[in-house]
Amino acid sequence: MSQSNTLVVNENRFFDPDLAIRKIARELYEGVKDLPIVSPHGHVDPSILADNKPFPNPTELILIPDHYIFRMLYSQGISLESLGIPTKDGSPMETDFRKIWQTFGDNFYLFYGTPTWAWLSHVFSAVFGIKEKLSGETAQSIYDQIDEKLKSPEFLPRAMFDRFNIEALTTTEGAEDDLRFHKTIKDSGWGGKVITCFRPDGVVNISAKGWKENIDLLSERCGFEINSYDDFIKAFENRREFFKSMGAVSTDQGVTSPYTFELTKSDANKLFQKALKGETNGADQAQFTGNILMEMARLSIEDGLVMQIHPGSYRNHNQPVFDKFGADKGCDIPLQTEYTRNLRALLNKYGNDPRLTLIVFTLDEDSYTRELAPLAGHYPAMKLGPAWWFHDSIEGMTRYRQMVTETAGIFNTVGFNDDTRAFPSIPARHDLSRRVDSNFLAGLVTRHIVDMEEARVMSRALAYDLVKQAYKL
Amino acid sequence: MSQSNTLVVNENRFFDPDLAIRKIARELYEGVKDLPIVSPHGHVDPSILADNKPFPNPTELILIPDHYIFRMLYSQGISLESLGIPTKDGSPMETDFRKIWQTFGDNFYLFYGTPTWAWLSHVFSAVFGIKEKLSGETAQSIYDQIDEKLKSPEFLPRAMFDRFNIEALTTTEGAEDDLRFHKTIKDSGWGGKVITCFRPDGVVNISAKGWKENIDLLSERCGFEINSYDDFIKAFENRREFFKSMGAVSTDQGVTSPYTFELTKSDANKLFQKALKGETNGADQAQFTGNILMEMARLSIEDGLVMQIHPGSYRNHNQPVFDKFGADKGCDIPLQTEYTRNLRALLNKYGNDPRLTLIVFTLDEDSYTRELAPLAGHYPAMKLGPAWWFHDSIEGMTRYRQMVTETAGIFNTVGFNDDTRAFPSIPARHDLSRRVDSNFLAGLVTRHIVDMEEARVMSRALAYDLVKQAYKL
Amino acid sequence: MSQSNTLVVNENRFFDPDLAIRKIARELYEGVKDLPIVSPHGHVDPSILADNKPFPNPTELILIPDHYIFRMLYSQGISLESLGIPTKDGSPMETDFRKIWQTFGDNFYLFYGTPTWAWLSHVFSAVFGIKEKLSGETAQSIYDQIDEKLKSPEFLPRAMFDRFNIEALTTTEGAEDDLRFHKTIKDSGWGGKVITCFRPDGVVNISAKGWKENIDLLSERCGFEINSYDDFIKAFENRREFFKSMGAVSTDQGVTSPYTFELTKSDANKLFQKALKGETNGADQAQFTGNILMEMARLSIEDGLVMQIHPGSYRNHNQPVFDKFGADKGCDIPLQTEYTRNLRALLNKYGNDPRLTLIVFTLDEDSYTRELAPLAGHYPAMKLGPAWWFHDSIEGMTRYRQMVTETAGIFNTVGFNDDTRAFPSIPARHDLSRRVDSNFLAGLVTRHIVDMEEARVMSRALAYDLVKQAYKL
Repeated sequence: MSQSNTLVVNENRFFDPDLAIRKIARELYEGVKDLPIVSPHGHVDPSILADNKPFPNPTELILIPDHYIFRMLYSQGISLESLGIPTKDGSPMETDFRKIWQTFGDNFYLFYGTPTWAWLSHVFSAVFGIKEKLSGETAQSIYDQIDEKLKSPEFLPRAMFDRFNIEALTTTEGAEDDLRFHKTIKDSGWGGKVITCFRPDGVVNISAKGWKENIDLLSERCGFEINSYDDFIKAFENRREFFKSMGAVSTDQGVTSPYTFELTKSDANKLFQKALKGETNGADQAQFTGNILMEMARLSIEDGLVMQIHPGSYRNHNQPVFDKFGADKGCDIPLQTEYTRNLRALLNKYGNDPRLTLIVFTLDEDSYTRELAPLAGHYPAMKLGPAWWFHDSIEGMTRYRQMVTETAGIFNTVGFNDDTRAFPSIPARHDLSRRVDSNFLAGLVTRHIVDMEEARVMSRALAYDLVKQAYKL
Repeated sequence: MSQSNTLVVNENRFFDPDLAIRKIARELYEGVKDLPIVSPHGHVDPSILADNKPFPNPTELILIPDHYIFRMLYSQGISLESLGIPTKDGSPMETDFRKIWQTFGDNFYLFYGTPTWAWLSHVFSAVFGIKEKLSGETAQSIYDQIDEKLKSPEFLPRAMFDRFNIEALTTTEGAEDDLRFHKTIKDSGWGGKVITCFRPDGVVNISAKGWKENIDLLSERCGFEINSYDDFIKAFENRREFFKSMGAVSTDQGVTSPYTFELTKSDANKLFQKALKGETNGADQAQFTGNILMEMARLSIEDGLVMQIHPGSYRNHNQPVFDKFGADKGCDIPLQTEYTRNLRALLNKYGNDPRLTLIVFTLDEDSYTRELAPLAGHYPAMKLGPAWWFHDSIEGMTRYRQMVTETAGIFNTVGFNDDTRAFPSIPARHDLSRRVDSNFLAGLVTRHIVDMEEARVMSRALAYDLVKQAYKL
Repeated sequence: MSQSNTLVVNENRFFDPDLAIRKIARELYEGVKDLPIVSPHGHVDPSILADNKPFPNPTELILIPDHYIFRMLYSQGISLESLGIPTKDGSPMETDFRKIWQTFGDNFYLFYGTPTWAWLSHVFSAVFGIKEKLSGETAQSIYDQIDEKLKSPEFLPRAMFDRFNIEALTTTEGAEDDLRFHKTIKDSGWGGKVITCFRPDGVVNISAKGWKENIDLLSERCGFEINSYDDFIKAFENRREFFKSMGAVSTDQGVTSPYTFELTKSDANKLFQKALKGETNGADQAQFTGNILMEMARLSIEDGLVMQIHPGSYRNHNQPVFDKFGADKGCDIPLQTEYTRNLRALLNKYGNDPRLTLIVFTLDEDSYTRELAPLAGHYPAMKLGPAWWFHDSIEGMTRYRQMVTETAGIFNTVGFNDDTRAFPSIPARHDLSRRVDSNFLAGLVTRHIVDMEEARVMSRALAYDLVKQAYKL
């Protein structure tokens, strides 16, 4: 597909073409675009910032860690092997990174109208100064330009972090992690604030493969044996304390369902003993997880860590791809998710306590108007996380604001999460979010739902204040 | 949060900023804005209009009866006690109404972008002539201004009713109610049309606390003992007749699910006997309710009362709040609701009969395109109620029209319901609805989907004709 | 209801009134409006084009085959008998086609704001040259004008087909069909491309009335007895081959749920034997169908036929109407539909194979963002069918693009399907689709999400390229 070559990132992008809306959107955006980036939840590999080594090449920096990119190419019949995605079984994959980049360029038109296109245009243009659109014709030239930049000191990870104006960046680690990279960063004398988030899925999913190994590792980290449910909870307290001492302000759980239910200590221990023997099934895990969510809320009230829940993803839906390439390969598919009944046990016990901050996410947009906005608009403890994953996009975020604001207001939401593994896309994602929110607010102003002064307060809240407040940053 | 103080209620509010749309929206709105208000469903306390006493003070008039307001304040950690919400157990609550109003003013920014903000701006401005925005700084002054007005004869309930240009106002009463306030109003010689609606939930929910007391009261009202299912249905007939004689044109049921199923008389009686012994559970209640919906449809064909169903609310989701403060405290949370299978028994038996008018509501917006518009676009008996509760709002109503109109047309819908407990907000709510519908229609006109003449017919239908016709008013 | 009489079909219809959007929408539309119509899925009766006889009269051409029209009239209490809908039991119906048309005219206002109104305006204006709006006053005159045209050679079916610029038209036939009309068309020497699509529902629905008769017919067509599951699958292979030889490029299945599950041959045969004895129930049929979907995917990989699934319709929801009038009478009602879990077995086994093209449709719009776009944006075999049935409409298609594009891109979608029984409405439906897509793309251009060159590529893809490619036409 031929295309003109000039990459233009328009200064009014994502704003409504109506001039009344655009003018106000632009004005609001100008007021927030240079605010520091607060990234309270994400998946950047902390070793990047600990080691601070040059990124190896454009393909390994941009394509291979980003499942948004390679899953779209895969959906059109391009094999993951040919895209250099590492295999688990050591079977061969493409290692010619220029060739992979060429395939990317040849097929970049697949992303027309997607947020990946919008983010990458920003990354190419604003981060790497590229002036041509990516295509089959320009692929090698763009590869060269990025590759050259990556070798310069200005493109070392910490230099980029500083240039991106990141006030705080949160990574996510398992309960059994030793946080060595965070320690390295802390001890380095570099001023960048990189904190972790406590995500205990690996030790909570009692029927998952590898659970026992994770428990053993957890035991090693804690310095005591974990033979009972009591030990297990003690280990949680121990690790939460450790994560907190390393700067963590939050926990996170990726659960299939947000089901919550309090087990008796004795029933919880029965499940735990069953798990130690490797005899639990999916139903056991659901019960156990529902109970752990209750414990996590209790512990959050005690130690002040903000609690996050990311439910509703059918992880590794494509078994053949998982078997060959492992997790996070673009084949997690959302599930319908019910919150009203499922969260009731937790909210009835802990949701009236303003000391708890419970931030709930969803992949099921239907739940916003029907369940999540009403819940967040009532329970003091509950807040809504921003548009997540598949709807972390121009239309998706717009729908989010339209569905949530009227019932929950903006003050029961918590600003933006980039939630990304793709380090250089962080500014692009925050910029897109600030633009979409500015445009949403301009729609309110031009319809005389709020006035300009109110919109400015809301604009700053959405871009900066709410996230700092909700995550205690 | 500082804000400029002038309260401006723009004459073009809620209209699209595009000048072509706005011009037509405004023109359509001008044609309907002064039509009388027909309010076919709501929860205003009839004693207000029976007694016609001055409202006590701004806080007791505006804040305390309105769960839209206090639930949002509560969601941000402000206790219900401090807002003066009456406790059931007699434990203390704030009774300094000025202090409560100050809290309201201090936190009024929480409502930015919500319909409550839009309604209250209209109430303050159009009803009470307030010229400043509510805030911490202006709270006491606004309290004084409203309070003074409330003492004048122009602000007695009936005077407000007349000034609001209300053609008919419908309240909602239980089957066991004696309608004494409606009798007082009827006998008063005042011309205002205030009618009731028959809502038998209290005697249908056989496993709810207090059911037996409600049955005893129903028995007393009917003047015969209710010992069997046959007696129970006879009591229904009796009370429907009485309600009708007092002006009622409709019934209503607030059911968890719209499940319908016809029991044999014998099975229905078995459940009823079980209920008399206090031995029924949730599943029994669901069966019993499913059967009563069938009976209600049958009775509506006989006596001509319009049948309404409001399903899908998990009532009193927050048990601690319910235990302390009782029902209707902002903690009813919507549930996913299925209509296609659930309504089939009723629609197959009675839905082809044009003598029945069955008006169905939903809190689950997803059901509009998928189930409700297709059902209403086919069955002669079925009509769709307007956007309800959480989506009775600018964006919510807009989505409603966009999701419903293409499949069901506008003539299978029934105009607007304000459904409010907040008496002074009635004109604000109807005005907002008329504006949103005008704007929706202007979108059709400017896209040449309908022409201006067609839009005028539709506009009047949505504001006035449909509600009168559907509710036989 | 009085209305001005001139029928105006505006050249900018369905485009946003914002002039920036409208200008670009118009420009994109001009580039695709004259492209040939490729209709890869629909329900036109092939005998129309085989016989090529004049259509009998306006009512039998336009109203009686179109359940979109008569269901809306029925929903307002107009009986199907009075609209001339044929009864199954031979009980009388109206046969005065002028009288029926008068009823249609009298009630045409019911369609304000619906796609039926938009399509019919185009049919009346562009196909029949009518210059007045249909109403009670104009009904007879319009009847006369259309009736006269229908008698002229220019309005014979094949002449209309040619004038409509149809490159290919696909009809749908059961597995047991002899395709005699397709043979007549092929043998006629007329150049019009009319192909069939293999839809085996009649022989797959093992617990449906008439199943055994369909199997007997299938057996007759195949020339061998069908006594076992193996025979049954052999018959499938036989008929797919035959349909392919007659030009078919696709199969289709209308299933209640998209549940897929592979049975052992032995279990499949057990169900089949049970079915032969007439002993199967709904659960058996669900299992059997889930397994047949797996077989169909396997066979599609072998013979290259594109596989379509249309799930989620509760067929013949209105039993009394079905009993009297039969199927396809406007009383099929959508059901909530789950894809993530249900399609997993099929997608895990065959979804990674790019030789398979599986086109999935939905009536449950909620599944687009949550399930279908993520699935189509990952699995190489899966593509998304266009907005179907109730949301084959201006707002519905717009929502479809907004919900699908950001996650799946446009290249995992397959252009437009008119899916109609109403032959003269084909150009109207394609024109509407091209207008809505042009307007959607103009929204992307004006917000600088894509540029004009990219939009032109997308525009042509949506109107023409994707459908040809996906359906191998």
